[in-house]
Amino acid sequence: MFSVKTLFEPKSVLLIGSSRIKEKVGLASPWLFRNVIYNMKKFFKGETLILDVDGKIGVSSFEELREAPELAVTMLPPKHSIFYVEKCAAFGVKAFIMITGGFRDDQRRQLLKVKEDYGVRILGPNTVMGVINTANGLNTTFERDVMPKKGNIAVVSQSGGVGACLLDWACFYNIGVSKFIFMGDKVDVDDVDVLRYLAEDEETKVVCLYMEGVKDGRRFIEESRKIVERKPILALKGGTTQESAYRAKSHTASMAGSEEVFDAAFKKAGIIRVNDAEELMNAALALSKQPPLLGDNIAIVSNVGGPAILAADAVARCNLKLARLSDETKRKIEAAYPGVDATNPIDLIADARAERFQKVLDLILADEHVDGVLVINMLKSCFFEPEDAKVIPEVAAKHPGKPVVDVPAGGEDFELVYKVIGNSNIPLYNLPEKGVKALMFLRLYGKVLSKVRKF
Amino acid sequence: MFSVKTLFEPKSVLLIGSSRIKEKVGLASPWLFRNVIYNMKKFFKGETLILDVDGKIGVSSFEELREAPELAVTMLPPKHSIFYVEKCAAFGVKAFIMITGGFRDDQRRQLLKVKEDYGVRILGPNTVMGVINTANGLNTTFERDVMPKKGNIAVVSQSGGVGACLLDWACFYNIGVSKFIFMGDKVDVDDVDVLRYLAEDEETKVVCLYMEGVKDGRRFIEESRKIVERKPILALKGGTTQESAYRAKSHTASMAGSEEVFDAAFKKAGIIRVNDAEELMNAALALSKQPPLLGDNIAIVSNVGGPAILAADAVARCNLKLARLSDETKRKIEAAYPGVDATNPIDLIADARAERFQKVLDLILADEHVDGVLVINMLKSCFFEPEDAKVIPEVAAKHPGKPVVDVPAGGEDFELVYKVIGNSNIPLYNLPEKGVKALMFLRLYGKVLSKVRKF
Repeated sequence: MFSVKTLFEPKSVLLIGSSRIKEKVGLASPWLFRNVIYNMKKFFKGETLILDVDGKIGVSSFEELREAPELAVTMLPPKHSIFYVEKCAAFGVKAFIMITGGFRDDQRRQLLKVKEDYGVRILGPNTVMGVINTANGLNTTFERDVMPKKGNIAVVSQSGGVGACLLDWACFYNIGVSKFIFMGDKVDVDDVDVLRYLAEDEETKVVCLYMEGVKDGRRFIEESRKIVERKPILALKGGTTQESAYRAKSHTASMAGSEEVFDAAFKKAGIIRVNDAEELMNAALALSKQPPLLGDNIAIVSNVGGPAILAADAVARCNLKLARLSDETKRKIEAAYPGVDATNPIDLIADARAERFQKVLDLILADEHVDGVLVINMLKSCFFEPEDAKVIPEVAAKHPGKPVVDVPAGGEDFELVYKVIGNSNIPLYNLPEKGVKALMFLRLYGKVLSKVRKF
Repeated sequence: MFSVKTLFEPKSVLLIGSSRIKEKVGLASPWLFRNVIYNMKKFFKGETLILDVDGKIGVSSFEELREAPELAVTMLPPKHSIFYVEKCAAFGVKAFIMITGGFRDDQRRQLLKVKEDYGVRILGPNTVMGVINTANGLNTTFERDVMPKKGNIAVVSQSGGVGACLLDWACFYNIGVSKFIFMGDKVDVDDVDVLRYLAEDEETKVVCLYMEGVKDGRRFIEESRKIVERKPILALKGGTTQESAYRAKSHTASMAGSEEVFDAAFKKAGIIRVNDAEELMNAALALSKQPPLLGDNIAIVSNVGGPAILAADAVARCNLKLARLSDETKRKIEAAYPGVDATNPIDLIADARAERFQKVLDLILADEHVDGVLVINMLKSCFFEPEDAKVIPEVAAKHPGKPVVDVPAGGEDFELVYKVIGNSNIPLYNLPEKGVKALMFLRLYGKVLSKVRKF
């Protein structure tokens, strides 16, 4: 049996579609075919071959191919797709990404037979958008120019719609992605196969899952538990309530378990659960940029009062604690800045600029009573300038074991600070509560690590 | 005693500052003075007069003013501010917005004495940004060109930082605002005075509060209860946990009550509580554009499967219910679109365009088993075009009693649809969970109404 690695790192790819056939439901269309060709030609660093079964683009038969490509992408209706999968497998193709859907059970069985006969690996069918690998430019999505920036977050989605939403989110908010995988119907390659690949993938530091159900729960839990020792897994679970169970069943043939069952399973697996797509991306951002939080004690450093109070409330609600600074740290801060009361949350006052943030942050991160820091640096109503934010990643780098997150709270303020340090190792959030939640997820991964390493 | 109305609707305003004095802490600075002048000159439709105590800009003494302006804005350190408040009150000024802070208790008492002697009204001191009235262009903020678009949401903030964050948010996300009020130290004008004014204000449909504490709780509850019969009040409360209580006390001299005490008080007052600034703005947006939700039954209409499942889960978590459509509605939908399974949440499939959304939405809104609708219309991975979204406000307008919210889930997708219907009466959200929460807030206001109208 060939490795699933070929699905992500093929040397050559054959795109199989039609410049004529248009399905009503299953997604096959000349438009989709053209767009996948466009993306592959534009982004993929390997060889892209095209097989148009109607002979208008690229080659129209195998005879014209000199050697078998490693991967084939099928964009035809079920019957035609199966025909070409068989033909390709016999020709030496090792792996398939099957975009189109609408396969019946007997057709799925036909695909499994090809797999058994030739040892090929099949992702899908019904993957909708297939696979993105930002390292080699592989991109089988049919939305032109949709390509997230290179980074170390992998996203695995069981749903085309949720996957498309997460992809759109990652592109729009400039979140660095290593791999994007739309699982589809999972006739062959399943979550565990993909998780194993991502565990070995050096480009991937954090794994995000959207799932509605899982086939072999025990195997999934066991494998996940091994992986989370090396990299965190975050999961957004759909279909957890009675209300959505009917739809989840018809959507991805998943049996929806109750909230409690999945919570227990995730806990056992060391998987961290999130509540929505934004939380998934926000948590992934923190875990991709900062170390796990190894204790509960958070210091808040802010140039505004109210948002720091909201952050302190959120600290308590997220089961974290406000750090009690040592007397020495307090003395040093208050000696340097007479107007500042160094009780956590620390209000540096509206006229604080880079120098004050730099010095206080350095003192706080050096304090053994502090495990992690939330910085709030607003521009509106304050004297802080976007350029001042540069000191935050600089100081944080001096204390690599303790996570730091930054909150330039608001709309334009967030954008302006993002332009200066958005590409640094400091994750940015537009509200205090989101920054505190990011620290909570860093803490949850710290707890996962101490648990899995103990056993 | 003069009316607080003068704080918002003065015919003429005198800006009192210095082109020389710069305080370390209390905010007085030539830079701030210049920026407030800039904003007032640019936006205010009444008369703007300037009194520079150092005589470089505008007039330098009262003798040069022919008649008393109605409102004066002080931007000087405490001692100087008090001096001019007294002088102005004697001259006939009716109301004051005091921007700068740092007042001692005895200085606050001096201000109260002026109020008693002349019947003037004082907002502040320490309001930081003062007041914005989008109807007449009054804008005493010191951030140049920060002016939200005209709308019907009023925001009252006890904190300069949280207020600045909410203002930045409203401007950046194009949320329509009627009034923006920074309360400051509340020596005279308090929350109840402002709430009473907003209750009468025809520009205001929804009131948003950020508060850390309240002085006369009973009066606040009684007044609020009267107001919520006419317009909803939303509140974000800071300083509710032990962790933040110390800071809230030093920040706004508020005694932080426990979560439970405030929850009970808000409930009694008919005030709807939110968890963070984004939720506050999202809830306000829904309430400013849509009618209250008068029952629990929600229909979900979507062109993607996974996000509809997440929405259905959120419906259950928000104490709402998935509507059971009547057999007739189902039959009509399935007859018109054979591929569609009309069980709620309804998946219109990826190729749904305007016509399918229009027809199904119309049928569902006409169904007596449906109280409100969540629409999900993604672009990525679907055939839906931004222009197609126009049918949503059109159909919703035919069923004015039932709220409709729209979710073009994602980043760019949201932006593209926003450009087409962002100014319509349909509130837009970038994730299913946020759309469902908006319906939840519409439901909570529906419950408030049925409660206060009963007693």
